[in-house]
Amino acid sequence: MSRVITISREFGSGGRTIGKKVAEKLNIPCYDAELITKIAEKSGFDQEYLTRNSEENGGGWLGNVFIRGNYYGRSNEDYIWQAQSEVILDLASKEDCVIVGRCADYILKGKADLLTVFIHASEEKRIERITNVYGIRSEDPAKRLRDKDKRRKAYHRFYTETEWGRAKHYTICLDSGEIGIDRCAEIIASLY
Amino acid sequence: MSRVITISREFGSGGRTIGKKVAEKLNIPCYDAELITKIAEKSGFDQEYLTRNSEENGGGWLGNVFIRGNYYGRSNEDYIWQAQSEVILDLASKEDCVIVGRCADYILKGKADLLTVFIHASEEKRIERITNVYGIRSEDPAKRLRDKDKRRKAYHRFYTETEWGRAKHYTICLDSGEIGIDRCAEIIASLY
Repeated sequence: MSRVITISREFGSGGRTIGKKVAEKLNIPCYDAELITKIAEKSGFDQEYLTRNSEENGGGWLGNVFIRGNYYGRSNEDYIWQAQSEVILDLASKEDCVIVGRCADYILKGKADLLTVFIHASEEKRIERITNVYGIRSEDPAKRLRDKDKRRKAYHRFYTETEWGRAKHYTICLDSGEIGIDRCAEIIASLY
Repeated sequence: MSRVITISREFGSGGRTIGKKVAEKLNIPCYDAELITKIAEKSGFDQEYLTRNSEENGGGWLGNVFIRGNYYGRSNEDYIWQAQSEVILDLASKEDCVIVGRCADYILKGKADLLTVFIHASEEKRIERITNVYGIRSEDPAKRLRDKDKRRKAYHRFYTETEWGRAKHYTICLDSGEIGIDRCAEIIASLY
């Protein structure tokens, strides 16, 4: 069974950077949310494939990750979720790795030897970070932050049974604003 | 300003033991919930003292910790909360220390240089621990666990504005069942 570090994170908390640093330290690959979306798009798991596959197998592995019980009337988001889930399961079956975002902790439960991480920071620190990293935009950064968090939270609640940011769902939760990006990466890598 | 490590914890997660080990490593005192209750009882902050004090000062420092806005009809629990809060503020004003339980993170917000910790573990691991530490009792350990957690959660919600066990309220949250008591203590001490 592969050892996989999953990183969930508040927007602007530096979770992706921490994931990359952890992966570098451990010399294993790091897959972030955008990368997984790209792989899913290119993977050939198109709507037809997914429909046929799930109908033939009566749900198959989907029983574990697709919990709403109704396989009719799926949105595009549902197809993407499904493709991403398969990509994540495939990545984790092949090698030890770090996966940032996309509810990988939930998808891999019982399927990999998991170290689950949640990274957060105060709104103030996150605004500072997104302004530094992404530059100043017309949109109010505090509003952008709350909006992104709300979407991540809703996405998580919709596709998983667990509550985003509730300590008990993670092996370790870290305030990157207080602790610092580098120290967070060190602690996580030391637990591997 | 003193540096204070506050430890909130699920029942049976070993939070108190971790607090003691951290304090030993850093050579600072550790005050646990029971100790603070005892100090409060002996402190002379009896009902008369507290009533007089808060009436004369129009609430005084209570404005920061006693948020329900109505100072009439207090229960004994309210008096104990008040005495404990004063004890915690007093301890933190004197020296660096570890404080386990009693919403110390909330009481000391802005009053000390805080490292706030939440310790949790799976129900399975906590049952294993309480059976080892406290022995087998007639009461079902799973029921006892849920009951204790429910009380702590309710206590926290009643006396503070923060939600118990929500990652964003803590500098670090650790699953002691996954990480181990000693390793948790090491990580916390290293952040001090």
